[in-house]
Amino acid sequence: MPHINLPTDYPGIRSLFVYRPETGDPLCRLAQVLLHDPHPTLSAGERELIASYVSNLNTCKFCTNIHSAIAKHQLASDLSLVKQVLSEPESAPISNKLKALLKIAAKVQAGGKQVIPEDIANARDEGATDIEIHDTVLIAAAFCMYNRYVDGLATWQPDNETLYDKMGEQRVREGYNPKSINIKLTETELQNS
Amino acid sequence: MPHINLPTDYPGIRSLFVYRPETGDPLCRLAQVLLHDPHPTLSAGERELIASYVSNLNTCKFCTNIHSAIAKHQLASDLSLVKQVLSEPESAPISNKLKALLKIAAKVQAGGKQVIPEDIANARDEGATDIEIHDTVLIAAAFCMYNRYVDGLATWQPDNETLYDKMGEQRVREGYNPKSINIKLTETELQNS
Repeated sequence: MPHINLPTDYPGIRSLFVYRPETGDPLCRLAQVLLHDPHPTLSAGERELIASYVSNLNTCKFCTNIHSAIAKHQLASDLSLVKQVLSEPESAPISNKLKALLKIAAKVQAGGKQVIPEDIANARDEGATDIEIHDTVLIAAAFCMYNRYVDGLATWQPDNETLYDKMGEQRVREGYNPKSINIKLTETELQNS
Repeated sequence: MPHINLPTDYPGIRSLFVYRPETGDPLCRLAQVLLHDPHPTLSAGERELIASYVSNLNTCKFCTNIHSAIAKHQLASDLSLVKQVLSEPESAPISNKLKALLKIAAKVQAGGKQVIPEDIANARDEGATDIEIHDTVLIAAAFCMYNRYVDGLATWQPDNETLYDKMGEQRVREGYNPKSINIKLTETELQNS
Protein backbone atom coordinates (compact mmCIF):
# COMPACT_ATOMS: atom_id res chain seq x y z
CA MET A 1 0.00 0.00 0.00
CA PRO A 2 1.37 3.46 -0.87
CA HIS A 3 2.73 5.52 2.05
CA ILE A 4 0.42 8.44 1.19
CA ASN A 5 -3.11 8.68 -0.20
CA LEU A 6 -2.48 8.40 -3.96
CA PRO A 7 -5.13 8.13 -6.70
CA THR A 8 -5.81 4.47 -7.50
CA ASP A 9 -5.85 2.93 -11.01
CA TYR A 10 -2.54 4.58 -11.90
CA PRO A 11 0.59 2.41 -11.65
CA GLY A 12 4.01 3.52 -10.37
CA ILE A 13 5.12 7.06 -11.12
CA ARG A 14 1.85 7.82 -12.94
CA SER A 15 0.03 7.93 -9.59
CA LEU A 16 2.57 10.52 -8.39
CA PHE A 17 2.22 12.68 -11.52
CA VAL A 18 -1.55 12.76 -10.99
CA TYR A 19 -1.16 13.47 -7.25
CA ARG A 20 1.24 16.40 -7.78
CA PRO A 21 1.07 17.73 -11.36
CA GLU A 22 3.27 20.73 -10.46
CA THR A 23 6.27 18.42 -10.06
CA GLY A 24 5.00 15.88 -12.62
CA ASP A 25 5.34 18.44 -15.39
CA PRO A 26 9.14 19.08 -15.15
CA LEU A 27 9.74 15.38 -14.39
CA CYS A 28 8.00 14.42 -17.66
CA ARG A 29 9.80 17.16 -19.59
CA LEU A 30 13.16 15.89 -18.34
CA ALA A 31 12.35 12.32 -19.44
CA GLN A 32 11.19 13.62 -22.83
CA VAL A 33 14.51 15.41 -23.50
CA LEU A 34 16.72 12.63 -22.13
CA LEU A 35 14.95 9.62 -23.61
CA HIS A 36 12.59 10.54 -26.44
CA ASP A 37 13.62 13.72 -28.27
CA PRO A 38 16.01 13.33 -31.21
CA HIS A 39 19.66 12.97 -30.13
CA PRO A 40 22.76 13.66 -32.26
CA THR A 41 24.07 10.08 -31.95
CA LEU A 42 22.44 7.96 -29.22
CA SER A 43 19.24 6.26 -30.37
CA ALA A 44 16.14 6.37 -28.15
CA GLY A 45 16.52 2.60 -27.71
CA GLU A 46 20.09 2.95 -26.41
CA ARG A 47 19.03 5.67 -23.98
CA GLU A 48 16.10 3.55 -22.73
CA LEU A 49 18.54 0.66 -22.17
CA ILE A 50 20.62 2.91 -19.89
CA ALA A 51 17.46 3.92 -17.99
CA SER A 52 16.34 0.32 -17.63
CA TYR A 53 19.83 -0.87 -16.62
CA VAL A 54 20.10 1.71 -13.80
CA SER A 55 16.53 1.02 -12.64
CA ASN A 56 17.43 -2.67 -12.39
CA LEU A 57 20.53 -1.85 -10.32
CA ASN A 58 18.24 0.15 -8.02
CA THR A 59 15.81 -2.84 -7.95
CA CYS A 60 12.87 -0.62 -8.94
CA LYS A 61 10.34 -3.05 -10.46
CA PHE A 62 8.07 -0.49 -12.10
CA CYS A 63 10.82 1.55 -13.78
CA THR A 64 12.80 -1.54 -14.86
CA ASN A 65 9.74 -3.16 -16.45
CA ILE A 66 8.36 -0.10 -18.19
CA HIS A 67 11.71 1.13 -19.57
CA SER A 68 12.63 -2.41 -20.65
CA ALA A 69 9.38 -2.54 -22.61
CA ILE A 70 10.03 0.90 -24.13
CA ALA A 71 13.61 -0.14 -25.05
CA LYS A 72 12.27 -3.29 -26.71
CA HIS A 73 9.85 -1.29 -28.87
CA GLN A 74 12.36 1.49 -29.64
CA LEU A 75 14.92 -1.12 -30.76
CA ALA A 76 12.29 -3.20 -32.61
CA SER A 77 13.87 -6.08 -30.71
CA ASP A 78 12.53 -8.57 -28.21
CA LEU A 79 12.54 -8.53 -24.43
CA SER A 80 15.17 -11.26 -24.09
CA LEU A 81 17.82 -8.95 -25.58
CA VAL A 82 16.92 -6.21 -23.08
CA LYS A 83 17.05 -8.70 -20.21
CA GLN A 84 20.48 -9.88 -21.37
CA VAL A 85 21.76 -6.27 -21.37
CA LEU A 86 20.48 -5.87 -17.80
CA SER A 87 21.98 -9.09 -16.45
CA GLU A 88 25.14 -9.55 -18.56
CA PRO A 89 25.94 -6.38 -20.51
CA GLU A 90 29.48 -7.55 -21.36
CA SER A 91 28.25 -10.52 -23.43
CA ALA A 92 25.16 -8.82 -24.87
CA PRO A 93 25.04 -8.05 -28.63
CA ILE A 94 25.44 -4.28 -28.21
CA SER A 95 28.25 -1.94 -29.29
CA ASN A 96 31.44 -1.60 -27.24
CA LYS A 97 30.63 2.09 -26.92
CA LEU A 98 27.29 1.33 -25.25
CA LYS A 99 29.02 -1.20 -22.96
CA ALA A 100 31.48 1.51 -21.87
CA LEU A 101 28.60 3.97 -21.29
CA LEU A 102 26.73 1.36 -19.20
CA LYS A 103 29.85 1.01 -17.02
CA ILE A 104 29.77 4.77 -16.41
CA ALA A 105 26.04 4.55 -15.64
CA ALA A 106 26.71 1.83 -13.04
CA LYS A 107 29.36 4.03 -11.40
CA VAL A 108 26.90 6.96 -11.24
CA GLN A 109 24.31 4.66 -9.67
CA ALA A 110 26.81 3.82 -6.92
CA GLY A 111 27.70 7.53 -6.45
CA GLY A 112 28.90 10.43 -8.59
CA LYS A 113 32.47 10.33 -7.30
CA GLN A 114 32.82 6.70 -8.41
CA VAL A 115 33.27 7.91 -12.00
CA ILE A 116 37.03 8.21 -12.59
CA PRO A 117 39.05 9.48 -15.58
CA GLU A 118 39.79 5.88 -16.68
CA ASP A 119 36.04 5.23 -17.14
CA ILE A 120 35.79 8.30 -19.37
CA ALA A 121 38.97 7.38 -21.29
CA ASN A 122 37.61 3.86 -21.91
CA ALA A 123 34.37 5.30 -23.30
CA ARG A 124 36.27 7.73 -25.53
CA ASP A 125 38.43 4.85 -26.82
CA GLU A 126 35.19 3.23 -27.99
CA GLY A 127 34.14 6.44 -29.74
CA ALA A 128 31.94 8.11 -27.10
CA THR A 129 31.52 11.88 -27.45
CA ASP A 130 31.14 14.52 -24.74
CA ILE A 131 27.38 14.78 -25.16
CA GLU A 132 27.00 11.00 -25.02
CA ILE A 133 28.98 10.91 -21.76
CA HIS A 134 26.98 13.87 -20.42
CA ASP A 135 23.64 12.32 -21.26
CA THR A 136 24.65 8.91 -19.89
CA VAL A 137 25.61 10.48 -16.54
CA LEU A 138 22.39 12.51 -16.40
CA ILE A 139 20.14 9.58 -17.42
CA ALA A 140 21.78 7.42 -14.72
CA ALA A 141 21.48 10.23 -12.15
CA ALA A 142 17.86 10.94 -13.12
CA PHE A 143 16.88 7.29 -12.64
CA CYS A 144 18.47 7.37 -9.19
CA MET A 145 15.78 10.02 -8.59
CA TYR A 146 12.82 8.42 -10.41
CA ASN A 147 13.52 5.01 -8.79
CA ARG A 148 13.73 6.49 -5.28
CA TYR A 149 10.57 8.52 -5.88
CA VAL A 150 8.59 5.47 -7.03
CA ASP A 151 9.84 3.15 -4.26
CA GLY A 152 10.20 5.76 -1.50
CA LEU A 153 6.43 6.35 -1.56
CA ALA A 154 5.66 2.64 -2.07
CA THR A 155 3.56 3.15 -5.22
CA TRP A 156 1.48 0.33 -6.68
CA GLN A 157 3.59 -1.62 -9.20
CA PRO A 158 1.78 -4.22 -11.36
CA ASP A 159 3.35 -7.61 -12.17
CA ASN A 160 1.79 -8.22 -15.59
CA GLU A 161 4.36 -8.20 -18.41
CA THR A 162 1.65 -7.71 -21.08
CA LEU A 163 0.51 -4.52 -19.38
CA TYR A 164 4.06 -3.11 -19.32
CA ASP A 165 4.46 -4.05 -22.98
CA LYS A 166 1.29 -2.16 -23.91
CA MET A 167 2.29 0.90 -21.87
CA GLY A 168 5.79 0.75 -23.40
CA GLU A 169 4.45 0.67 -26.94
CA GLN A 170 2.21 3.66 -26.13
CA ARG A 171 5.15 5.62 -24.72
CA VAL A 172 7.16 5.06 -27.92
CA ARG A 173 4.26 6.46 -29.96
CA GLU A 174 3.36 9.38 -27.74
CA GLY A 175 6.51 10.32 -25.81
CA TYR A 176 6.57 11.55 -22.22
CA ASN A 177 3.68 13.96 -22.58
CA PRO A 178 2.01 14.35 -19.15
CA LYS A 179 -1.45 14.32 -20.78
CA SER A 180 -0.72 10.96 -22.37
CA ILE A 181 0.99 9.46 -19.31
CA ASN A 182 -1.75 10.43 -16.89
CA ILE A 183 -4.53 8.32 -18.41
CA LYS A 184 -6.22 5.85 -16.07
CA LEU A 185 -5.84 2.14 -16.74
CA THR A 186 -8.99 0.56 -18.20
CA GLU A 187 -11.07 -1.98 -16.30
CA THR A 188 -9.59 -4.79 -18.39
CA GLU A 189 -6.02 -3.59 -17.79
CA LEU A 190 -6.71 -3.38 -14.07
CA GLN A 191 -8.16 -6.89 -13.98
CA ASN A 192 -5.05 -8.23 -15.70
CA SER A 193 -2.53 -6.29 -13.62
CA MET B 1 39.20 18.94 -14.12
CA PRO B 2 35.72 18.17 -15.48
CA HIS B 3 35.35 14.87 -17.36
CA ILE B 4 33.96 16.67 -20.44
CA ASN B 5 34.65 20.02 -22.05
CA LEU B 6 32.43 22.35 -20.00
CA PRO B 7 32.32 26.16 -20.23
CA THR B 8 34.65 27.70 -17.65
CA ASP B 9 33.73 30.48 -15.18
CA TYR B 10 30.54 28.65 -14.14
CA PRO B 11 30.71 26.63 -10.91
CA GLY B 12 29.07 23.24 -10.28
CA ILE B 13 25.72 22.56 -11.89
CA ARG B 14 25.71 25.97 -13.57
CA SER B 15 28.39 24.77 -16.01
CA LEU B 16 26.12 21.84 -16.92
CA PHE B 17 23.06 24.06 -17.44
CA VAL B 18 25.06 26.22 -19.85
CA TYR B 19 26.50 23.15 -21.61
CA ARG B 20 23.09 21.51 -22.17
CA PRO B 21 20.23 24.04 -21.80
CA GLU B 22 17.67 21.49 -23.08
CA THR B 23 18.07 19.49 -19.86
CA GLY B 24 18.93 22.53 -17.74
CA ASP B 25 15.47 23.97 -18.28
CA PRO B 26 13.40 21.13 -16.71
CA LEU B 27 16.06 20.67 -13.98
CA CYS B 28 15.67 24.34 -12.99
CA ARG B 29 11.88 24.13 -13.18
CA LEU B 30 11.87 21.12 -10.85
CA ALA B 31 14.06 22.94 -8.30
CA GLN B 32 11.80 26.00 -8.55
CA VAL B 33 8.64 24.00 -7.69
CA LEU B 34 10.28 21.88 -4.99
CA LEU B 35 12.31 24.56 -3.22
CA HIS B 36 11.18 28.07 -4.09
CA ASP B 37 7.51 28.28 -5.08
CA PRO B 38 4.99 28.83 -2.27
CA HIS B 39 4.13 25.61 -0.39
CA PRO B 40 1.01 24.96 1.71
CA THR B 41 3.00 24.34 4.91
CA LEU B 42 6.75 23.75 4.46
CA SER B 43 8.76 26.96 4.32
CA ALA B 44 11.39 27.44 1.61
CA GLY B 45 14.03 27.39 4.37
CA GLU B 46 12.85 23.98 5.63
CA ARG B 47 12.87 22.58 2.10
CA GLU B 48 16.38 23.94 1.48
CA LEU B 49 17.53 22.28 4.73
CA ILE B 50 16.30 18.91 3.37
CA ALA B 51 18.17 19.56 0.09
CA SER B 52 21.36 20.52 1.90
CA TYR B 53 21.09 17.59 4.35
CA VAL B 54 20.80 15.03 1.52
CA SER B 55 23.61 16.71 -0.48
CA ASN B 56 25.84 16.40 2.59
CA LEU B 57 24.99 12.70 2.94
CA ASN B 58 26.01 12.33 -0.71
CA THR B 59 29.22 14.33 0.05
CA CYS B 60 28.54 16.74 -2.84
CA LYS B 61 30.51 19.88 -1.90
CA PHE B 62 28.91 22.27 -4.40
CA CYS B 63 25.28 21.33 -3.64
CA THR B 64 25.84 21.18 0.14
CA ASN B 65 27.47 24.61 0.23
CA ILE B 66 25.05 26.41 -2.07
CA HIS B 67 21.87 24.96 -0.53
CA SER B 68 23.23 25.58 2.98
CA ALA B 69 23.74 29.22 2.01
CA ILE B 70 20.23 29.43 0.51
CA ALA B 71 18.76 27.80 3.64
CA LYS B 72 20.57 30.32 5.83
CA HIS B 73 19.13 33.26 3.86
CA GLN B 74 15.63 31.75 3.58
CA LEU B 75 15.57 31.16 7.35
CA ALA B 76 17.17 34.57 8.11
CA SER B 77 19.45 32.52 10.32
CA ASP B 78 23.18 31.92 10.39
CA LEU B 79 25.29 29.19 8.86
CA SER B 80 26.11 27.53 12.18
CA LEU B 81 22.45 26.50 12.60
CA VAL B 82 22.42 24.95 9.13
CA LYS B 83 25.68 23.11 9.86
CA GLN B 84 24.20 21.79 13.10
CA VAL B 85 21.17 20.44 11.23
CA LEU B 86 23.50 18.67 8.80
CA SER B 87 25.74 17.10 11.43
CA GLU B 88 23.39 16.55 14.38
CA PRO B 89 19.77 17.00 13.33
CA GLU B 90 18.42 15.38 16.50
CA SER B 91 19.85 18.07 18.78
CA ALA B 92 19.33 21.01 16.39
CA PRO B 93 16.74 23.70 17.26
CA ILE B 94 14.22 22.62 14.60
CA SER B 95 10.71 21.18 14.92
CA ASN B 96 10.14 17.50 15.69
CA LYS B 97 8.19 17.32 12.41
CA LEU B 98 11.22 18.48 10.42
CA LYS B 99 13.43 16.00 12.31
CA ALA B 100 11.05 13.17 11.30
CA LEU B 101 11.07 14.38 7.67
CA LEU B 102 14.89 14.48 7.67
CA LYS B 103 14.89 10.83 8.83
CA ILE B 104 12.72 9.96 5.82
CA ALA B 105 15.06 11.95 3.56
CA ALA B 106 18.06 9.98 4.87
CA LYS B 107 16.24 6.72 4.12
CA VAL B 108 15.51 7.87 0.55
CA GLN B 109 19.19 8.79 0.12
CA ALA B 110 20.13 5.21 1.05
CA GLY B 111 17.45 3.79 -1.30
CA GLY B 112 13.71 4.13 -1.89
CA LYS B 113 12.82 0.80 -0.30
CA GLN B 114 14.51 1.85 2.97
CA VAL B 115 11.44 3.98 3.77
CA ILE B 116 9.14 1.81 5.92
CA PRO B 117 5.65 2.43 7.31
CA GLU B 118 7.12 3.21 10.76
CA ASP B 119 9.06 6.16 9.30
CA ILE B 120 5.83 7.54 7.84
CA ALA B 121 3.88 6.89 11.06
CA ASN B 122 6.55 8.73 13.08
CA ALA B 123 6.31 11.74 10.76
CA ARG B 124 2.51 11.73 10.96
CA ASP B 125 2.71 11.59 14.79
CA GLU B 126 4.67 14.84 14.59
CA GLY B 127 2.00 16.40 12.37
CA ALA B 128 3.40 15.76 8.88
CA THR B 129 0.83 15.80 6.05
CA ASP B 130 0.75 13.73 2.86
CA ILE B 131 2.09 16.55 0.71
CA GLU B 132 4.92 17.22 3.17
CA ILE B 133 5.90 13.53 3.06
CA HIS B 134 5.59 13.51 -0.74
CA ASP B 135 7.73 16.61 -1.18
CA THR B 136 10.35 15.38 1.31
CA VAL B 137 10.72 12.11 -0.61
CA LEU B 138 10.93 13.92 -3.94
CA ILE B 139 13.41 16.57 -2.71
CA ALA B 140 15.63 13.80 -1.30
CA ALA B 141 15.33 11.77 -4.51
CA ALA B 142 15.98 14.83 -6.69
CA PHE B 143 19.19 15.64 -4.81
CA CYS B 144 20.34 12.06 -5.33
CA MET B 145 20.14 13.10 -9.00
CA TYR B 146 21.60 16.63 -8.81
CA ASN B 147 24.51 15.45 -6.58
CA ARG B 148 25.39 12.56 -8.93
CA TYR B 149 25.14 14.88 -11.95
CA VAL B 150 27.49 17.45 -10.42
CA ASP B 151 30.05 14.91 -9.12
CA GLY B 152 29.66 12.33 -11.91
CA LEU B 153 30.98 14.85 -14.44
CA ALA B 154 33.60 16.24 -12.00
CA THR B 155 32.43 19.85 -12.29
CA TRP B 156 34.50 22.71 -10.88
CA GLN B 157 33.42 23.36 -7.26
CA PRO B 158 34.81 26.47 -5.55
CA ASP B 159 35.90 26.47 -1.88
CA ASN B 160 35.11 30.07 -0.99
CA GLU B 161 32.30 30.36 1.59
CA THR B 162 31.72 34.05 0.78
CA LEU B 163 31.06 33.19 -2.86
CA TYR B 164 28.49 30.54 -1.90
CA ASP B 165 26.85 33.03 0.46
CA LYS B 166 26.53 35.60 -2.31
CA MET B 167 25.14 33.05 -4.78
CA GLY B 168 22.74 31.79 -2.08
CA GLU B 169 21.41 35.27 -1.37
CA GLN B 170 20.88 35.81 -5.11
CA ARG B 171 18.99 32.52 -5.43
CA VAL B 172 16.60 33.56 -2.61
CA ARG B 173 15.87 36.81 -4.44
CA GLU B 174 15.58 35.42 -7.95
CA GLY B 175 14.54 31.77 -7.62
CA TYR B 176 15.72 28.97 -9.90
CA ASN B 177 15.23 30.87 -13.13
CA PRO B 178 17.69 29.49 -15.73
CA LYS B 179 18.39 33.02 -17.01
CA SER B 180 19.45 34.11 -13.54
CA ILE B 181 21.39 30.94 -12.71
CA ASN B 182 23.39 30.93 -15.92
CA ILE B 183 25.26 34.19 -15.35
CA LYS B 184 29.06 33.99 -15.46
CA LEU B 185 31.02 34.69 -12.30
CA THR B 186 32.72 38.10 -12.35
CA GLU B 187 36.49 38.49 -12.45
CA THR B 188 36.53 39.35 -8.74
CA GLU B 189 34.40 36.36 -7.85
CA LEU B 190 36.68 34.10 -9.89
CA GLN B 191 39.79 35.49 -8.20
CA ASN B 192 38.27 34.79 -4.80
CA SER B 193 36.97 31.33 -5.61
